[in-house]
Amino acid sequence: MFQTFEAQSTPDQGPPRLQALRAVMATQGVDVFLVPRADAHQGEYVAPRDARLEWLTGFSGSAGFCAILPNIAGIFIDGRYRVQVRSQVAADFTPVHWPETRLADWLKEQMPDGGTVGFDPWLHTVAEIADLRRDLPEFTLQPTDNLIDAIWDDQPDAPSAPFTAHPLELAGESHDAKRARLGAELSEDAAILTLPDSIAWLLNIRGTDIARNPVPQAFAILHASGAVDLFAGAGKADEIGDHLGPEVTVHDFGDFLAALQDFSGTVRIDNKSCPEIVASTLRSAQVTIKEGKDPCILPKACKNTAEIAGAKAAHDRDAVAMVRFLAWLDAQTPGQGLTEIDVVKALEGFRQQTNALRDISFETICGAGPNGAIVHYRVTEDTNRPIGAGELLLVDSGGQYVDGTTDITRTIAMGTPTQEHRACYTRVLQGMIAVSRIRFPKGVGGQHLDALARAPQWMAGQDYDHGTGHGVGSYLSVHEGPQGISRRSEVALQEGMILSNEPGYYREGSFGIRIENLIVTVAAPALDGGDDRAMLCFDTLTQVPFDRRLIDTSMLTAQERGWIDRYHSDTVSLLAARLDDQTAVWLKEACAPL
Amino acid sequence: MFQTFEAQSTPDQGPPRLQALRAVMATQGVDVFLVPRADAHQGEYVAPRDARLEWLTGFSGSAGFCAILPNIAGIFIDGRYRVQVRSQVAADFTPVHWPETRLADWLKEQMPDGGTVGFDPWLHTVAEIADLRRDLPEFTLQPTDNLIDAIWDDQPDAPSAPFTAHPLELAGESHDAKRARLGAELSEDAAILTLPDSIAWLLNIRGTDIARNPVPQAFAILHASGAVDLFAGAGKADEIGDHLGPEVTVHDFGDFLAALQDFSGTVRIDNKSCPEIVASTLRSAQVTIKEGKDPCILPKACKNTAEIAGAKAAHDRDAVAMVRFLAWLDAQTPGQGLTEIDVVKALEGFRQQTNALRDISFETICGAGPNGAIVHYRVTEDTNRPIGAGELLLVDSGGQYVDGTTDITRTIAMGTPTQEHRACYTRVLQGMIAVSRIRFPKGVGGQHLDALARAPQWMAGQDYDHGTGHGVGSYLSVHEGPQGISRRSEVALQEGMILSNEPGYYREGSFGIRIENLIVTVAAPALDGGDDRAMLCFDTLTQVPFDRRLIDTSMLTAQERGWIDRYHSDTVSLLAARLDDQTAVWLKEACAPL
Repeated sequence: MFQTFEAQSTPDQGPPRLQALRAVMATQGVDVFLVPRADAHQGEYVAPRDARLEWLTGFSGSAGFCAILPNIAGIFIDGRYRVQVRSQVAADFTPVHWPETRLADWLKEQMPDGGTVGFDPWLHTVAEIADLRRDLPEFTLQPTDNLIDAIWDDQPDAPSAPFTAHPLELAGESHDAKRARLGAELSEDAAILTLPDSIAWLLNIRGTDIARNPVPQAFAILHASGAVDLFAGAGKADEIGDHLGPEVTVHDFGDFLAALQDFSGTVRIDNKSCPEIVASTLRSAQVTIKEGKDPCILPKACKNTAEIAGAKAAHDRDAVAMVRFLAWLDAQTPGQGLTEIDVVKALEGFRQQTNALRDISFETICGAGPNGAIVHYRVTEDTNRPIGAGELLLVDSGGQYVDGTTDITRTIAMGTPTQEHRACYTRVLQGMIAVSRIRFPKGVGGQHLDALARAPQWMAGQDYDHGTGHGVGSYLSVHEGPQGISRRSEVALQEGMILSNEPGYYREGSFGIRIENLIVTVAAPALDGGDDRAMLCFDTLTQVPFDRRLIDTSMLTAQERGWIDRYHSDTVSLLAARLDDQTAVWLKEACAPL
Repeated sequence: MFQTFEAQSTPDQGPPRLQALRAVMATQGVDVFLVPRADAHQGEYVAPRDARLEWLTGFSGSAGFCAILPNIAGIFIDGRYRVQVRSQVAADFTPVHWPETRLADWLKEQMPDGGTVGFDPWLHTVAEIADLRRDLPEFTLQPTDNLIDAIWDDQPDAPSAPFTAHPLELAGESHDAKRARLGAELSEDAAILTLPDSIAWLLNIRGTDIARNPVPQAFAILHASGAVDLFAGAGKADEIGDHLGPEVTVHDFGDFLAALQDFSGTVRIDNKSCPEIVASTLRSAQVTIKEGKDPCILPKACKNTAEIAGAKAAHDRDAVAMVRFLAWLDAQTPGQGLTEIDVVKALEGFRQQTNALRDISFETICGAGPNGAIVHYRVTEDTNRPIGAGELLLVDSGGQYVDGTTDITRTIAMGTPTQEHRACYTRVLQGMIAVSRIRFPKGVGGQHLDALARAPQWMAGQDYDHGTGHGVGSYLSVHEGPQGISRRSEVALQEGMILSNEPGYYREGSFGIRIENLIVTVAAPALDGGDDRAMLCFDTLTQVPFDRRLIDTSMLTAQERGWIDRYHSDTVSLLAARLDDQTAVWLKEACAPL
């Protein structure tokens, strides 16, 4: 079982640790110390060793940070976590609404005369520190050792499991070819890579350093020649020497800063993800820094045919598990003790039975009734809810398979839904279908398509407060840029980009609905009578039935109804032969024409 | 008759003028001279005196510029004008595809060693010159007198007609209130206003200085106190002294630069529209310049209730003229000599018969058959086309009335349309209806709605290469910012913003379709079951029937069909009583339910 359900931390752990931290701050002469949630790689998950924010405060959310002052400790959390933070942290910590309140403004308010702000330069990006320096002219920004590590006696060790080679037949392009291609496109002499999924993609390697995302924690220097210097924990790359070959030189992690000091030429860093210490080391060594995007991000997002084939195989395998799960769920009687945790365990069990599951791709979100309205709900023993008859159950989950990463949400009627449930569900489904069906010219970005998913809800005076879609990696992070479908996603969509398509609707205290398929951007076939212009469309990767009991057919256009019936018929064709007889019968009924 | 039909210029005028210009360039020691289409106010129309680009080259388009070198004269034109420029200018001018080719790159290619670039600092914005200075370090950018004026013997005088007061009951807010409100919001001591429609709106005045847009050519300084210094041609403001009152001081235009030199304090200029000479004068006088948006632009765009009431009255009046025109057109027999010019004259005649027409709001675009596919087609005696049976006729026109500015496009089947005509027309109409019907949360911009208008075409492999909508002024410019509906329009839509809604479809060499209504952004009424969130929607200002013969009802959803029937029924209710009996009968037939 990958997922666990204990309440991960308790409020009472915080105050003594806060006291110890303030003591060490005083000895170091810093007035403020910053404790971010991030590690040096700025990913969504961190290793236990790097869970410093949670260790200090008890707060277990995936974003946020703490600013410790002698007389106040502000914990900055966004809208998703305003309720959660109150139950997880002691009153010694003061929740601050972020990003509405900016750190710099809050610090100026707390310390009008300024002071010394200590920070670990590995854990903050170049952009973050530059912004603080600009906005806090009265303060001294002082890089320090990590003061949490100084007081954390039983801090776990850094992960040490070895990296593995990602097979060429799944990667679709050798790392020699990738390195040569990206190196040749650099206008600098080298680029510093600090994002684990960039390094994983570039070198066709994977790791087990953090949960949920199979990435290797490492840093790298990509040279214009295509050669790479890889910096990793001792021994972690020993088993992949043959795979890496002569153009990739493995160094101990501890040699990274020295290598930067010795660098000559111009070097690209990505200010939004590169640790400040990288830039300050380069600056001290008088290396010419050019700010630019991590060169792996866009090519990684545009999956090649092998990666898309892998994604299809992974999704089909995952769909078998999902259908078995839905059939099992359909046989349960709500209101008789079945809980959210039971459901999460059952689902992970069906995924385990594929014998191919490397990890779940994130903590399963399983919310019944009002818990479904908490967008990032993670069930714990404390919150676990028996599923009542007539409630909606929202299940958002995914699997990491060696050939692909999945992410799927289905909302299921547990018993008889209300007409309001059905109307809201149908609008969400109409939005998802609108994105699934759309064709669009090259140049269009996710910001232009987002309204298509929302229009059915807007017409009813409804909306949802999250993006419609995020990029998804190829046996990598389940959230990856640069593409997306949201009002702020400016990047033009390109062939091979995998996205989620997941409109939702949430009524606080009552129910939540989300429907999510993964889709891949492909060249749209030419149409009779169409213009002579290159257009794109989406292929759907996820083939798992929607809950027909929640669809109000009277609200659908003929095209929408036809789309659902075709989707369901395709699902049966794809999966029936891979299921036991009983589940196949269930699937055929679940996929009957509307 | 406002519109004229002569070919406005001829290619053979260019070469001798180019020769004369090069001679004066040599005496001034400049290697390059820039001839923009713009005047000092950066508007869409220019006075005859300012039509320097056309005088020099023959090119009459509404955007573009010329860069004259000793051995080459590049005329920079965008995609709309690539065909037109070839027929209007002599071979001595070299067309350059702009903005694909940037002026700086082209100059560096022509003169690798650099040189002196002369320019009239009244005609180029601060941003344009700053960009050139940044991109052309090897060149000297040299403000000069206008060298076209130096060789243009019979250059027309500047317009001298007096300004008029715009009545308070139409403006809806006194200029005292506007000045006080905007002045109080300035974080600088003053703002320089150089856009005539900003000055017109702020002071509730209008002018006749240029065709089509009833704006006063002037400059102004808005002080934080709300006081205004107005700089205009001698005597032009004499008749509105009482209207302007004691807080608006009128100066002769020639005193503008001296006033800038005497200024003390901080001053806001809008780099995108402010002439370079304003900034250079302020810089020389060591005035502190802050770059910021013209403060009138956003408040001008958000029409108040009086302006919206005026717009409705103007649109209803214009609709009577349009319906009489459409009834007249329906009685004509295509293929028997009726030409595009006949149609333009007839339409202007019907508008004149309202006895309220101050001007047309732009040159009527009237294109039959293949001419309809030329998006900015202006018929001349040379291009005038007899309208053939079975052709589509695209008519895009508008009127300037004292209470509002109109802009409407209808596409009419002249005889029996083909099924292809009908299918394409229906998709354009579906896109227009999608925008007309949408409700959306506050914060959404035109960039997010644009796809709604295109989705029906995208699904058929079609699209159109212009924005879906532009802002429209209140008895001001027919194109006004900041709002719009296009992929690039980032401004959040706000209550009171008037927009065009005009998807189109163009098949080169064959036909063009565009359907345009004006719409106004309003608060959306709350809906049962809707969220507690502020939403907006559009009210339609234009009530003129669509050509039912071009609508393929089999392609419509029930909602779309219902929308059209309601629109037509509303049109009859609104207009029938204002029409003669025969036209009223025609209208009722034209508006029969589908």
